[in-house]
Amino acid sequence: MLPDLASTRADYESFKARGLKLDMTRGKPSPEQLSLSDAMLVPQGNGDTTTAAGEDARNYGGDLRGLPEVRALFAEALGLPADAIVLGNNSSLALMHDCIVWALLKGVPGGERPWSREPSPAFICPVPGYDRHFGLAEDFGFRLLPVPLTGQGPDMDAVEALAADPAVKGMWCVPRYSNPTGETYADETVRRLAAMRTGAPDFRLFWDDAYAVHHLTAARTPLAPILDLCAAAGHPDRAFCFASTSKVTLAGAGVALFAASPANVAWYLARAGRRTIGADKLNQLRHLRFLRDAEGLHAHMARHRALIAPKFDAVLDALERRLSGTGLARWSRPEGGYFISVDVLPGTAARVVDLAKAAGLALTPAGATWPQGRDPEDANLRLAPTFPSLKDVAAAAEGIALCIALAGLEARAA
Amino acid sequence: MLPDLASTRADYESFKARGLKLDMTRGKPSPEQLSLSDAMLVPQGNGDTTTAAGEDARNYGGDLRGLPEVRALFAEALGLPADAIVLGNNSSLALMHDCIVWALLKGVPGGERPWSREPSPAFICPVPGYDRHFGLAEDFGFRLLPVPLTGQGPDMDAVEALAADPAVKGMWCVPRYSNPTGETYADETVRRLAAMRTGAPDFRLFWDDAYAVHHLTAARTPLAPILDLCAAAGHPDRAFCFASTSKVTLAGAGVALFAASPANVAWYLARAGRRTIGADKLNQLRHLRFLRDAEGLHAHMARHRALIAPKFDAVLDALERRLSGTGLARWSRPEGGYFISVDVLPGTAARVVDLAKAAGLALTPAGATWPQGRDPEDANLRLAPTFPSLKDVAAAAEGIALCIALAGLEARAA
Repeated sequence: MLPDLASTRADYESFKARGLKLDMTRGKPSPEQLSLSDAMLVPQGNGDTTTAAGEDARNYGGDLRGLPEVRALFAEALGLPADAIVLGNNSSLALMHDCIVWALLKGVPGGERPWSREPSPAFICPVPGYDRHFGLAEDFGFRLLPVPLTGQGPDMDAVEALAADPAVKGMWCVPRYSNPTGETYADETVRRLAAMRTGAPDFRLFWDDAYAVHHLTAARTPLAPILDLCAAAGHPDRAFCFASTSKVTLAGAGVALFAASPANVAWYLARAGRRTIGADKLNQLRHLRFLRDAEGLHAHMARHRALIAPKFDAVLDALERRLSGTGLARWSRPEGGYFISVDVLPGTAARVVDLAKAAGLALTPAGATWPQGRDPEDANLRLAPTFPSLKDVAAAAEGIALCIALAGLEARAA
Repeated sequence: MLPDLASTRADYESFKARGLKLDMTRGKPSPEQLSLSDAMLVPQGNGDTTTAAGEDARNYGGDLRGLPEVRALFAEALGLPADAIVLGNNSSLALMHDCIVWALLKGVPGGERPWSREPSPAFICPVPGYDRHFGLAEDFGFRLLPVPLTGQGPDMDAVEALAADPAVKGMWCVPRYSNPTGETYADETVRRLAAMRTGAPDFRLFWDDAYAVHHLTAARTPLAPILDLCAAAGHPDRAFCFASTSKVTLAGAGVALFAASPANVAWYLARAGRRTIGADKLNQLRHLRFLRDAEGLHAHMARHRALIAPKFDAVLDALERRLSGTGLARWSRPEGGYFISVDVLPGTAARVVDLAKAAGLALTPAGATWPQGRDPEDANLRLAPTFPSLKDVAAAAEGIALCIALAGLEARAA
């Protein structure tokens, strides 16, 4: 039932009068989530810094791929072969950056030349998507080609049409609990991505499995194994995979990883070996001593879920109560990840963010989920409920729902 | 007095018969040195992860330059303005790499185009020098132009002549306790580097002050302040400075830093902000809680010195006893840093390394200190005495001196 503009405005004004100050802009873990990993900062047992191979993790040296026992842990947790994994420092975005600059300057396996020598290279960008992905590619001169997400992953007809162009060198993917829609790519989507014909022989999927173990329900949504499917389709080198523990252990002090085919790993190591003697092995050991094994990691993620699932529920509940049946918004009901995506009436997303700001609620800028920060429909909002307390999230959600309703009713009245 | 070939060969064979197995290849701290920092791995006091600004160092966010209190510590210890400093993760080499790839792809302040668009860009390489510096530049296609070191830093007439070429974009410098010669650039050398005319308006000194606080004597050899001198000479943006705590605290888990002019820092942050949300702030805090302040850092380095100065003495003693007055070798007597540089008879360095290997002593490959790993004289050896125990270093030094004598006497006899 459609609420009335005057009463919605009155509700908004009274919400605004509460003088709240809440930040829902970024997907940050809450202090309580970070405290789940505090034990990682204390050496386990005897504070042992010796690796399984008997090496001193405090010193230079060892396998540039990272400690084998830590790679084995992540391999099991993520369903990847340990040999495919290279560990980095605290940021998977940094590993994506490095792959892009190395592709630009040196080329990638299967390529005919460095990407910087292509006349007008481009990246496919499923939308809505992650602003830092888009910004990174744009900053290095790639054209960004948006394709819509469907709930099953990107519109594959559109992707296949774009990928046929040899200038299209890469594609951003957050295949599981996508940022911000929460959707997981269907098996058929993953299969088509692995199998499709690409104009560029060195086309790469930038497969950012950022939320691989970040479930919001008891079900662990599976994702088809991209490396296996690429190999089976005769494109073994198509995917660069990334993940990190930024939202498993500590957001500024996790372990990131790169995973790919043997040829890609050899390429990556040849480049990385020029850049560094190795990533921080002590932080790798901290993770191992703390998480212990894949089962320990999943148990840890269940404790995250207990903290954040109620926050997602609070947002969904407010949206439901204020907006269900009004036609003023549609929203995702994610089963994992860090975001709720809301599509409001076209032309009103920026107005919603302004109304929220005036009421003390900081939201991710409208358009942030689109290339260049410009949503052509001005319709998508990304809500990040994890950081504030449950009480604050519930209050903020009420306000956001009000802002969406008010902006929508204003637009209809105009 | 020249030893006799037959008796030297007999001494070598008897040394070889001892069946030692020692590695003197890389400048790695010893386990005892690393243990000096073990307390850093235990949270100090209450294990506080809150920054001076009251922020939670476990989460994303804060100043991309790193924690101000940690930048202030390094600023004081290194004689740099805190505002000029940006903290990185565990590798200063990685920061140099990033500056090079960004210079190639985006250009640097004062430049007319990205360095990758220059027809044949080049780096000046003082020799003997650090293999990883040379390899990094070479891997990205720079021509490497060797210039001799003089004991006061590079031959500045040669540097000025080369730098007049607009294709020369950069120069590697390890200005203090240089790797491997141990020399510190004289004030006049630093002044000329800051003041010289360069053909490229965007020429950069890659100023790797890797051994800034790594003294082997009670004297702390000063280094003229490159950023100030560049600014005074009207070239404020000429120097990219680098340092790290890899050989202060833990070799695989230290904190690296970039330091430069305001324009360079702004440029660096614009690039770094695409790559990462920030470096590991918990590791920055670990350093602060452990080292406390510049005085604490210097006191810590004095404890390193107590462990490693006797190892340098053991090597110098063996060289002196076996080779002094023979004309078969000259060597550095470093007052800091991690290496002893030995110049043997031209044409015999590779033979020395082979002889040493046969006797169980792993030395840095001959030529490693030159671009492309090719020493045109086959004369320079780099000795790295820090990692083995004092007893092993003494034994190895004896063997190395024997190998040098034997290779030299063989060459003279040929």
